[in-house]
Amino acid sequence: MPRKTSTARLVESPGRFFEDFRLDEVIRHATPRTLTEGDASLYTALTGSRHAQWSSQPLARALGLRARPLHDLLVFNTAFGKTVPDISLNAVANLGYAEVRFLAPVYPGDTLRCESVVIGLRPNSNGRSGVVYVRSTAYRDDDAAVLSWVRWVMVHRRQPQAPMAPGASGSEHVPRLASHVPVDRLALHDAPRPGAALDDWCEATGSQALWDDYAPGDRILHPGGITVEEADHMTATRLYQNTARVHFDGHGMAGSPLGRRLVYGGHVISVCHALSYDGLENVRGLAAINAGSHVAPTLAGDTLYAVTEVLDRWKLPGRADMGALRLRLLGLKNLHPAHLPGLREPSAEPPSEPPLETPLAQHPAVVLDLDYTALMPRRPGTRADA
Amino acid sequence: MPRKTSTARLVESPGRFFEDFRLDEVIRHATPRTLTEGDASLYTALTGSRHAQWSSQPLARALGLRARPLHDLLVFNTAFGKTVPDISLNAVANLGYAEVRFLAPVYPGDTLRCESVVIGLRPNSNGRSGVVYVRSTAYRDDDAAVLSWVRWVMVHRRQPQAPMAPGASGSEHVPRLASHVPVDRLALHDAPRPGAALDDWCEATGSQALWDDYAPGDRILHPGGITVEEADHMTATRLYQNTARVHFDGHGMAGSPLGRRLVYGGHVISVCHALSYDGLENVRGLAAINAGSHVAPTLAGDTLYAVTEVLDRWKLPGRADMGALRLRLLGLKNLHPAHLPGLREPSAEPPSEPPLETPLAQHPAVVLDLDYTALMPRRPGTRADA
Amino acid sequence: MPRKTSTARLVESPGRFFEDFRLDEVIRHATPRTLTEGDASLYTALTGSRHAQWSSQPLARALGLRARPLHDLLVFNTAFGKTVPDISLNAVANLGYAEVRFLAPVYPGDTLRCESVVIGLRPNSNGRSGVVYVRSTAYRDDDAAVLSWVRWVMVHRRQPQAPMAPGASGSEHVPRLASHVPVDRLALHDAPRPGAALDDWCEATGSQALWDDYAPGDRILHPGGITVEEADHMTATRLYQNTARVHFDGHGMAGSPLGRRLVYGGHVISVCHALSYDGLENVRGLAAINAGSHVAPTLAGDTLYAVTEVLDRWKLPGRADMGALRLRLLGLKNLHPAHLPGLREPSAEPPSEPPLETPLAQHPAVVLDLDYTALMPRRPGTRADA
Repeated sequence: MPRKTSTARLVESPGRFFEDFRLDEVIRHATPRTLTEGDASLYTALTGSRHAQWSSQPLARALGLRARPLHDLLVFNTAFGKTVPDISLNAVANLGYAEVRFLAPVYPGDTLRCESVVIGLRPNSNGRSGVVYVRSTAYRDDDAAVLSWVRWVMVHRRQPQAPMAPGASGSEHVPRLASHVPVDRLALHDAPRPGAALDDWCEATGSQALWDDYAPGDRILHPGGITVEEADHMTATRLYQNTARVHFDGHGMAGSPLGRRLVYGGHVISVCHALSYDGLENVRGLAAINAGSHVAPTLAGDTLYAVTEVLDRWKLPGRADMGALRLRLLGLKNLHPAHLPGLREPSAEPPSEPPLETPLAQHPAVVLDLDYTALMPRRPGTRADA
Repeated sequence: MPRKTSTARLVESPGRFFEDFRLDEVIRHATPRTLTEGDASLYTALTGSRHAQWSSQPLARALGLRARPLHDLLVFNTAFGKTVPDISLNAVANLGYAEVRFLAPVYPGDTLRCESVVIGLRPNSNGRSGVVYVRSTAYRDDDAAVLSWVRWVMVHRRQPQAPMAPGASGSEHVPRLASHVPVDRLALHDAPRPGAALDDWCEATGSQALWDDYAPGDRILHPGGITVEEADHMTATRLYQNTARVHFDGHGMAGSPLGRRLVYGGHVISVCHALSYDGLENVRGLAAINAGSHVAPTLAGDTLYAVTEVLDRWKLPGRADMGALRLRLLGLKNLHPAHLPGLREPSAEPPSEPPLETPLAQHPAVVLDLDYTALMPRRPGTRADA
Repeated sequence: MPRKTSTARLVESPGRFFEDFRLDEVIRHATPRTLTEGDASLYTALTGSRHAQWSSQPLARALGLRARPLHDLLVFNTAFGKTVPDISLNAVANLGYAEVRFLAPVYPGDTLRCESVVIGLRPNSNGRSGVVYVRSTAYRDDDAAVLSWVRWVMVHRRQPQAPMAPGASGSEHVPRLASHVPVDRLALHDAPRPGAALDDWCEATGSQALWDDYAPGDRILHPGGITVEEADHMTATRLYQNTARVHFDGHGMAGSPLGRRLVYGGHVISVCHALSYDGLENVRGLAAINAGSHVAPTLAGDTLYAVTEVLDRWKLPGRADMGALRLRLLGLKNLHPAHLPGLREPSAEPPSEPPLETPLAQHPAVVLDLDYTALMPRRPGTRADA
């Protein structure tokens, strides 16, 4: 065979820069991933997840599901990981996400693939970076969409440009995003169930507290705490095939401003959600994430705690057996929520919009501020007003 | 929907205190758990387990089992974890266990649920705590009991009482517990097998040492050692959905007398039992744990080693192919058993009862003292005296 | 039952020494291991593996395989682990491997067993040790050979002998080993596929770079880096049931010249191969390892990086759709390959033999030097010359 000696080259994979994104461009992300019982076990072992529909096959079947589904956040993190090499390898920062909708259950054996559409581009006035907005969708191998979400990231330019004049806007395309996923856009995964099964369910979860028992303004102090280790968060992040170097490359990060590996935010969400079991035992699954931000970095050695504030409570059209709770999950580091100032004096007035700037969320111990919508069974006696 | 502004509350989950237990009360523990091949793989990866019936599907089937069963100690630890939120969340100390019986195999796909009966209550004379005795049983989803055990824990009172007068006994109910599970109460999981299969078995395990070759007084020095890391023991303990804060909450534990996270004792048992493979290769499974205590705390960074003393050797009624060995597994930290004083001078007289206070067990390196009964094949030539 | 008090003994498992090996001896290794989806998930979580045939069930089936196979290096590491107790428990050093051939795919549910033949013995002149050469083969439970390899290790003598006189050779049997596995001895696991499926494949992997696009002399800088933690490498090594004490026994290793636990070389290979995804996305699997050496120890805390050099490019007899690439994977610690001197000036002349002593490999940051043969799809337009 003739050798192509003249083509000897150096191959590098630098990832996409701000100039590489085009509005309305569709990006198909690499490497579909078959999720299995093995991934479910690892998710439990790495996060401490205990919610019943993900823990027990018979209980999942009693809900009308064909099997025990994979944890919603395992699906979210796996789908998110697929987008990293194309979207955020050169990201300066993950700025936020919105309109995250859990559309259909994913079962062991299903294969996820993922694509994104560029829905917004906003160059920064400093000429060195810009913000990219993408709407991503994950599909099962039967082509059913299982998850849809918007996120926006700040990405470096390959070639810096001259800073813009003050007031100049460049060619901006900033999408309008909903403040939250409305109740009529929530997908319900399980079938309506006869009331009798509710007793079995509550015995399985160990709690009688149902949708009816939570009210806006309630604050739930979750008692547990979990210290994060480097091995833990890297193992979780590799499980999701997320390749962002900030989570793995300790040598490279030693020279960064942070000086350390950064714990993947999706792992922080998963751990804090697992901690939220105590006090929210009957959460049936996530229906939406309305908004979320990683307020401060989590590093190995930090101990995570969680507190939940009930933001709102919605009935679901056509479902007398189940309702939705809009919840605000705050992740804290190195401060047990029992010691959070102001926690024991809930505001008399429930918030009409998520109180993103309340003193509670501004505490320096807060690392995660997640506004999500969960489903929970309703008490049969209250169904008359459904 | 009208908002229940007046009901805004602070929800906490403090767990049960001594006053909350009633004699003969039945407690059904939360969150059934479906165990899978994923859990089996994690158990191997976290402990180094190698015994053949749990490692090889064809060998398990050759024993007459329908599949490769899950490791007995994976079942034990999972079932134990279920009881923690109700029994030992406010425990001062886990004082011991007894009458642990492995009743039926658990296969991948089986779901465990667990319940406990309060069989004893003994208030402490200091008025601040008391001892709770429970007999717990784990069931498969086909309602077969798979594991039964007694444990007792010291639990705080919510409201301290005045100390008792010297000699006062309060309303004590202390159960009588067997010193060991007798041979006629051991469950045998595999079917009697023709002698021919024994050669295949011994080739698979790499050892010709059978039940006949062990005698009371024998001491088996297991050569391996495994250093425990924080990530290891927390991952194992989360796999079992055990929520005891002492194992996870590094920030909270920094202010405790220990100053550190405590390694879950069940992980210590699992690691030491895995180390015991070398020298006890033909152990067919655990039939009972007669007694056990965690003599000293194990902390991350400690290296665990193991040594086994043969306490007794029993024939099994109706089974010429298999016998039982009563074994005492000592777990050591940071001292290889080859350096344990007295190990090389076994006592001439075999003990009639477990020598719980022998100098061997009193060595400060001992962290685990476990008296259990294992099954092992017998040599065909010795069957005439069965 | 009469107690055999007179036989109370101390049982130890010291492993084999140099005197215990006989030329042509066949050693059947202990404890067959059933591999499952759980092991596949752990392999992904511990290494970050992303190659498509191991990640996606539908893609594996599109290749004509009956299911998603287990990662070639999971199979290699598991099979290797089986040989440790018999071959290398008393090893001074693992000197190298050769003629590693991946013969057939292994699927979840398959059980591996392993045997070795002693093919060479060479006493060292110092009288204290010798080199043992073994050819090992791993079999599925349907008796198909799935992996065959040669390795040689230096093993202690139980009883040191007098040093040999200078020039004396003793009874040496040193096998002749091939410099590489020739193309006609490579096993191809997947069926020839119609050209149409190639587009789907490349979309799944995210790369259009095929066999045709690589040429000898090319150097591929893989951008990622992964810091190794004690918990990571021990969990991986336990997953493979590898019992070599140097990887686990931190207390014992504190007294060794290294002073620390040594990361198992197979874990280093797995991590570096996973890092090689970026730039070699279309690798279809390993066909052979021609040679390999662990040039320097990897310790917890080290960050691993990888660079690949293309050594050769071969057509495959009867296969116009796929070719073979002979690749040299260098693993580096604590030095990103972008900073490796000489990397950006590839030699004009491609090497005819692996340049084992080039300056690139001599850099003190190199920990792994692995010469292997990978399969990769060919571009349809080039098939005319097949």
